[in-house]
Amino acid sequence: MTNSRTSLSKSQLKSLESIFPGDSMTVAPAEMLIYGTDAGRRFSLPWAVVRPESVEQVQELMRLADRERIPIIPRARGTNVVSACVPDQGGVVLSCLKMNRIISIDPDDFTALVQPGVVTADLRQKAMDMGLFYPPDPASMSVSTIGGNISTNAGGMHAVKYGVTGDYVLGLEVVLPGGETVTTGGRVHKNVVGLDLTGLLVGSEGTLGIIVKAWLKLLPGPEYSATILACFENEQKALRAVQNIFRSGILPCALEFLPAEVMDCLAGYGPVPWPGTAGSALIIQIDGTRPSVTHELRTVRSAVKGCLHLDQTGQDEEDRIWAIRRLINPASFSLGPDKISDDVVVPRGKILDAVQGIRGISRKHGLKILAFGHVGDGNIHVNYMYDDSDPNRKQKVEAARQETLRLVLDLGGSMSGEHGIGLSKKPFISWQLGSAELELMRGIKKVFDPHGILNPGKGW
Amino acid sequence: MTNSRTSLSKSQLKSLESIFPGDSMTVAPAEMLIYGTDAGRRFSLPWAVVRPESVEQVQELMRLADRERIPIIPRARGTNVVSACVPDQGGVVLSCLKMNRIISIDPDDFTALVQPGVVTADLRQKAMDMGLFYPPDPASMSVSTIGGNISTNAGGMHAVKYGVTGDYVLGLEVVLPGGETVTTGGRVHKNVVGLDLTGLLVGSEGTLGIIVKAWLKLLPGPEYSATILACFENEQKALRAVQNIFRSGILPCALEFLPAEVMDCLAGYGPVPWPGTAGSALIIQIDGTRPSVTHELRTVRSAVKGCLHLDQTGQDEEDRIWAIRRLINPASFSLGPDKISDDVVVPRGKILDAVQGIRGISRKHGLKILAFGHVGDGNIHVNYMYDDSDPNRKQKVEAARQETLRLVLDLGGSMSGEHGIGLSKKPFISWQLGSAELELMRGIKKVFDPHGILNPGKGW
Repeated sequence: MTNSRTSLSKSQLKSLESIFPGDSMTVAPAEMLIYGTDAGRRFSLPWAVVRPESVEQVQELMRLADRERIPIIPRARGTNVVSACVPDQGGVVLSCLKMNRIISIDPDDFTALVQPGVVTADLRQKAMDMGLFYPPDPASMSVSTIGGNISTNAGGMHAVKYGVTGDYVLGLEVVLPGGETVTTGGRVHKNVVGLDLTGLLVGSEGTLGIIVKAWLKLLPGPEYSATILACFENEQKALRAVQNIFRSGILPCALEFLPAEVMDCLAGYGPVPWPGTAGSALIIQIDGTRPSVTHELRTVRSAVKGCLHLDQTGQDEEDRIWAIRRLINPASFSLGPDKISDDVVVPRGKILDAVQGIRGISRKHGLKILAFGHVGDGNIHVNYMYDDSDPNRKQKVEAARQETLRLVLDLGGSMSGEHGIGLSKKPFISWQLGSAELELMRGIKKVFDPHGILNPGKGW
Repeated sequence: MTNSRTSLSKSQLKSLESIFPGDSMTVAPAEMLIYGTDAGRRFSLPWAVVRPESVEQVQELMRLADRERIPIIPRARGTNVVSACVPDQGGVVLSCLKMNRIISIDPDDFTALVQPGVVTADLRQKAMDMGLFYPPDPASMSVSTIGGNISTNAGGMHAVKYGVTGDYVLGLEVVLPGGETVTTGGRVHKNVVGLDLTGLLVGSEGTLGIIVKAWLKLLPGPEYSATILACFENEQKALRAVQNIFRSGILPCALEFLPAEVMDCLAGYGPVPWPGTAGSALIIQIDGTRPSVTHELRTVRSAVKGCLHLDQTGQDEEDRIWAIRRLINPASFSLGPDKISDDVVVPRGKILDAVQGIRGISRKHGLKILAFGHVGDGNIHVNYMYDDSDPNRKQKVEAARQETLRLVLDLGGSMSGEHGIGLSKKPFISWQLGSAELELMRGIKKVFDPHGILNPGKGW
């Protein structure tokens, strides 16, 4: 991939226009502004934006782009926080938003067949209306799309019990550079024929092919759920309770951990239900049949015994507790107008080490850092709150970020559990992946995309 | 890979002996006999058998083999039923049986770190002793090993609720041709850094690298389980009950379907609990907390309402019902001294079509075919019972087998849900996988194994 090109030639533009007539394409800078950025907030104007409605259009685009070496950057709603949708090497942005049909939901096969631009929450709702359950629930699900969820292997609050997006992808239809379409897997729940190309495409951040269809697995929906908020004197006690819960044989469907900084930040933002002595909290959700939830709630209550404050709600009032969790994001901006967020993972037993380590880094640099999250699977969201207009702060945040990534890797963890690499963690990729692993990934990339036209420069 | 070679040169033998001193290597035909075959019952004598105890030995072997273009066929207990362990192009068999340590089980991280030669049932037991749960349970688990389970992405009875082996592999240490070692993933439960090499290696049938270590995910063990045997007048009624169960929001941990032929075969083999009018049966297992199991059993009983016979047992007596399921295998040999078994998958809603279609094929050829299995995920075991010494029968079985594979693919299914391809389904691979998909797989194979030394000729 040469980076010396700066735009499309006239004949390339003409070819593009013949594939994408009318308003299915734009090159107007004002219209393209939004396609130059994503939730990661970097910016680079694309050369053109196209909005295919059909697989055939994607195929023609990929034939043209491969032949002419035009970078293609697939995206939908741009909720990506690691700048994986930013066309920083130029190229054509492919918006999947017009491929947004739920093609079918099959209550006998327990599958859904969808186009990539379907909003995740819409699929969840439609499945629920039919008594079916699509479990993955990334925080962005009311706006983010299935295609993006697959490309990042998005997780969510309920991953501890239900797994991540990839666990629900049974098959994909994907257009490769050059225009060839491959179908991996399909409507079956089990399949060991050939290499797992489906799994390889999941989480590949748009670097291997353009997803145009996905077969998803559905489950029977759980009958009931309930939530407990338990507040503790300190983090040690909260995390001991987490181990108690798991050791009692319970797998909560969500298990969120709030350390001291988050408790303080929330208390400073508005009224909170816990006493001032509380230094940590857990939000624990249980689902299943009604009797099982009742029974497990008792077990959870005994696992959190000795906590300072306990609030328990059934399904109809759960949102009262979850609203507290959702407040973290708006409340955190009281600590600084700008945020950089990472989503590190550590082995489940190393959460306290990670939280304390991050606290040390925060103190060292005099920064506001909130580290909280999905304690059930060791996935910690780290939000660095600062003022982007202060170059000194900005530099300190970058230093703290790097120290945190090092810390997490030293604990046997991973730099990302949900967000991916994109541009934002790319400089540090060799801290986690060895040269042999990277060489394999780059070799695989070449098999799918020999001329490197797909989302160039992203990921590994 | 050239097939013209027929054995090791003297200098190659000498190099091998220096890596594998004493009884860690053999070239004695009598000792090598067992390494020439597996449960798929094809046979081809290897050139040598080596039994490494250390990663270093595997590295040295892979350096030598890659340089000298010596085929390496990894194996352990040889329970593979599609002949994936047979050295049909010659080469050196690598036995993983001496790398059989459970390195650690961590009750805080909910992970196990094991060598490939660990017997699956041993790991399950050791985890259970610590209150932890390793769910994958291939039928062979009392003899088969983790390495083999990973290489075939082995399933099992409980896959409908708990998924397959691949769902529990968090990371792998793998030696590549040339001797380089790569580590993919690790002790974390979530990880989206780079392409999912772990998932790619799972189910790759020993064609990409030699697994020397695996990080596995553990769950809290379920508190209780119970089983129901429900016998029905006919298959339609049994399968309607299956849909009722799922629609009631229950996810059984096992759900086995017995069609008419299996009922007859079992009744002819010994005493059975059901009345002569029963033409089909379901075995349904529920697990979870005790109150939840009690509650769900009630729901299941209402879902199977109208069945001819119902037997329900709590955890302590469940084995009484599961013994019937285990009888299918020995009983089936009353229909013929030889067996070829396939493990097709269809979309869950197409099970009846598949069973009836296979029945038609069986009648057309006048063959005894038993089709039964994991109805919960559409995975049907098809056992062709015949006399291998009768060439006419043998030919008919082969024809019936191919017609069944075609049938399953026409129903939107897959040729294999658990066994893999090996040699036995290799001739039919292009029926399921298109040339573009195969080209990608072969491209990926070249990235890992440029000289094609790893289990050559297997899979896709």
